[in-house]
Amino acid sequence: MSQIAHQIRRGAYADSIVLMQLQSALTGLPGVDDAGVVMATRANLDLLRANRLLPETALELGADDMLLVVKADSLEAAEAALGEVDRLLERRGTTGSDEEFRPRSLRGALRLAPDAGWVLVSVPGRWAARVAREALEADRHVFLYSDNVPLEEETALKRLAAERRRLVMGPDCGTASIAGVGLGFSNRVRPGAIGLVAAAGTGLQAVASRIHELGAGVSHAIGTGGRDLSEEVDGATTLQGLATLAADPATEVIVLVSKPPAPRVAARVLAHARAVGENGKPVVVCFLGLATPLERAGSLVFAGSLAAAAERSVELAAGGGAVASEAEKATGFLRGLFSGGTLALETLQGLAPLLAPIHSNLSLPGVEPLTDPAVSRGHTVLDLGGDEFTVGRLHPMIDPDLRRRSLEQEVADPETAIVLLDVVLGEGAHHDPAGALAPAIRAAVARGGLEVVALVVGTDLDPQGLEDQIGALEEAGALVVRDPRAAVTRVIERLTAEAGAASAAVPLDAFAAPLSAINVGLETFHTSLVDQDAKSVHVEWRPPAGGNEKLLALLDRMRGSDDG
Amino acid sequence: MSQIAHQIRRGAYADSIVLMQLQSALTGLPGVDDAGVVMATRANLDLLRANRLLPETALELGADDMLLVVKADSLEAAEAALGEVDRLLERRGTTGSDEEFRPRSLRGALRLAPDAGWVLVSVPGRWAARVAREALEADRHVFLYSDNVPLEEETALKRLAAERRRLVMGPDCGTASIAGVGLGFSNRVRPGAIGLVAAAGTGLQAVASRIHELGAGVSHAIGTGGRDLSEEVDGATTLQGLATLAADPATEVIVLVSKPPAPRVAARVLAHARAVGENGKPVVVCFLGLATPLERAGSLVFAGSLAAAAERSVELAAGGGAVASEAEKATGFLRGLFSGGTLALETLQGLAPLLAPIHSNLSLPGVEPLTDPAVSRGHTVLDLGGDEFTVGRLHPMIDPDLRRRSLEQEVADPETAIVLLDVVLGEGAHHDPAGALAPAIRAAVARGGLEVVALVVGTDLDPQGLEDQIGALEEAGALVVRDPRAAVTRVIERLTAEAGAASAAVPLDAFAAPLSAINVGLETFHTSLVDQDAKSVHVEWRPPAGGNEKLLALLDRMRGSDDG
Repeated sequence: MSQIAHQIRRGAYADSIVLMQLQSALTGLPGVDDAGVVMATRANLDLLRANRLLPETALELGADDMLLVVKADSLEAAEAALGEVDRLLERRGTTGSDEEFRPRSLRGALRLAPDAGWVLVSVPGRWAARVAREALEADRHVFLYSDNVPLEEETALKRLAAERRRLVMGPDCGTASIAGVGLGFSNRVRPGAIGLVAAAGTGLQAVASRIHELGAGVSHAIGTGGRDLSEEVDGATTLQGLATLAADPATEVIVLVSKPPAPRVAARVLAHARAVGENGKPVVVCFLGLATPLERAGSLVFAGSLAAAAERSVELAAGGGAVASEAEKATGFLRGLFSGGTLALETLQGLAPLLAPIHSNLSLPGVEPLTDPAVSRGHTVLDLGGDEFTVGRLHPMIDPDLRRRSLEQEVADPETAIVLLDVVLGEGAHHDPAGALAPAIRAAVARGGLEVVALVVGTDLDPQGLEDQIGALEEAGALVVRDPRAAVTRVIERLTAEAGAASAAVPLDAFAAPLSAINVGLETFHTSLVDQDAKSVHVEWRPPAGGNEKLLALLDRMRGSDDG
Repeated sequence: MSQIAHQIRRGAYADSIVLMQLQSALTGLPGVDDAGVVMATRANLDLLRANRLLPETALELGADDMLLVVKADSLEAAEAALGEVDRLLERRGTTGSDEEFRPRSLRGALRLAPDAGWVLVSVPGRWAARVAREALEADRHVFLYSDNVPLEEETALKRLAAERRRLVMGPDCGTASIAGVGLGFSNRVRPGAIGLVAAAGTGLQAVASRIHELGAGVSHAIGTGGRDLSEEVDGATTLQGLATLAADPATEVIVLVSKPPAPRVAARVLAHARAVGENGKPVVVCFLGLATPLERAGSLVFAGSLAAAAERSVELAAGGGAVASEAEKATGFLRGLFSGGTLALETLQGLAPLLAPIHSNLSLPGVEPLTDPAVSRGHTVLDLGGDEFTVGRLHPMIDPDLRRRSLEQEVADPETAIVLLDVVLGEGAHHDPAGALAPAIRAAVARGGLEVVALVVGTDLDPQGLEDQIGALEEAGALVVRDPRAAVTRVIERLTAEAGAASAAVPLDAFAAPLSAINVGLETFHTSLVDQDAKSVHVEWRPPAGGNEKLLALLDRMRGSDDG
């Protein structure tokens, strides 16, 4: 029967590598079955409990307390193992690479490596923002691996970064690759023409690995942290990254990867991606969770999976090129007047991420509800076959009157630039929908500055005559398309989305090889930089003021004091 | 300056075709600029107002009141036009096809056409359920075009339909096609091997039209009404339709189309679709709004747009076949233990619609949250790199301890059938993750009845050695895949989803040509059936008890009375 002994070290800091090594060393001692060495967070205690390593005595512990537990074949063996802890910690202390001088603060490291353009930060979350801010204030780019950084710290850091024209990749950014050197977790891939911006760590790794496997390569891969495309952070680093890769001469194709973004932020990012695309660099978009019917829209190419994102980008880099639109840009709004609900829906699903804000009487994420369906607002897509329109009234597929009137109303609005109509042929429908709509279409086109796009659904066997109907619509001046996706593409070619202010590219000097960095936190990241022939200075970081937050607040107020 | 005159006919019923024709006739009278003839619903009044056709006097009107408005160049002309209304209504009455006897009730029509297998119902919403119920009680299939039918009426009708083994297509079902005859709105397409089930009217029309355009054809197309895949209706008609097309010898490939379904219902429908697929009929799934990374999963093929659904089904019908899995089925649960959040997410997005209920510490529509991440429940996918696991602890990509322990814990659970692990190589990661996991994988496989799937992300340049890592994992007994989609596919091949009770196919006798139907409501649907050489009896329907709901309730209580 195994016995458990434990030891608590209150307020003791050790970095996670030390905890791991200590746990591993304890497990190797005589008679020991298992061991756990953790900072006593709720989750870590739960895990110890699940592994039957939690002492039964009630423990009042917090995240600042180190808990050491040993399970052994006797209580004596367990306690003997715990008695070795100080010796094991000391021994570890002397195995460090002692041939080089290691600064104990970022300030010291900056003095030592004034050319270092990058600071990697992987200290515990509650100390991370402080280190990152110091790096930004010294005009360094920051790779912020630490997680559990409060959201308001992230927004504040990214505001500061934008002012300084520096990147904050993270918090909770696991991976990046700059000029062929991986930061954090990173696969080795050949250099190439594809640049990545990703709010998805292993997403970025999977895409980059697959690009390499397909024979192509990566220019730079910029991580943003998983919350970058949230409402609060508003795509700050993603937009900087996009602008930077757009300015980077080595990058010819850009891939954007994200976990499900906030709809409004997705729209803002895609508006900027369209602008980049129209300037000649196609952008592959892999927003996992974005349900779009589109495979491409002009210079944007949509991928529904990580592997597909890699494949599309390699095709584009090889010259399978997404083509920028040659349609003349129009100023004004889209007004979609649909008789078919599903056609309206697919069109809206295609448009919503690309043309925000867009309004509809159909309810859909990322689409603004229309308070009064009789009055369009901004970009609007109406399902005129919706229940609210068909009480005591024929469906618009039988009775063209409502659509004719709606069309006239939209044409009277000088802000209407494109009207989109569906024309559904077949049994049960109006015997001549094109003929019924043609006079209103003719009047609309005659107004000037207005395009009418007609989406025709039907077959050559339909009683209305497919060719005749298309002919009548074209003769009236409409542009005829046969698929909701083509309607979306046409609208996107003509109309510019509201994108908000563009982010500035960051200066590219720190993106040139050889990369020079300072590492504050996990030593493995320093080792990995050195292994990749990058220049790296590792900081022997300890929590400031010995981790005493009261003392730290006092020191902060005194400022100017050297903590290095 | 135009003048407006109006007339109110309280409690007057006229079907929408009559309203349209009357409005059109009034607009043609001397001096008339415009006219509106509507049942005075809120939406119709709003539309009249938008067209400047609403009288300025306050009108107290309800949905039972007919409002007639005429705008003319003088008040006299407007009033003269309104004076013509009775004559116009009478003239219309005599233009009906008077050579045939028309029953005034469904009961009468059923006597006249005892072979009619189908009843089309397009009377106003509040009367529609009554007519549909009568049809079901007479063991007829119902095409229920009417909208504005309350949800509880729909669920009650569909319960009755299941008992009677009859279909209720609708309410708010715009389209269907049975044995080449279109019901409601329907495109004429050639007969063929592709069967459709759609909770999306113009979606079905667009897919069927495109199938025809691609040179293939349709066996039957079953509409379900737009609410069929809501939580409340639970896919009742969709599942019946799927079972019926599965039983239909003319159908070789099935296409499922829907507007965004409720996640739980989507999972239930897909579980049945998988079963159909495994019996040899591949199913193309086009759930607009479903974001899946998969292009296919065994015999299911996913399409992100209506046009793509048509294309995939035509390829399958031509023999490009989705292949049913040959993997042996396992009993038990999936346990995914991921170090990479995005890899976990893409896997979960692929699995969630196919393997419900599934649990995770990642938050996603259709995924059940895990109350205690330390304890898996049913099918579980864990992101062990999530913030809650990494406070005061190394990321699992560096420290394999947590994963090893989690793996041992899952193996100890006899319900675990598949363990899915990601192994992410590259800079910064553990120097030998495969080696660190191999003993636990070997022990897992040795347990028996358990498969370990390892998703490896990395390149041949990575320091761990891609081939060595894959070799070590395979040697330990793991099945290695290289893409989250392949992991999903493997899991799906091995595990059966909880599908709930299967729906019975409805008898196929009414699906044979020549089709025979009874039409209650819009006359155009009757005309269209006749035009298609189907047999149709049109009912000269009027609201029962003259539309007086009190009287109707009284009559209902007396029952047995003949209202025909």
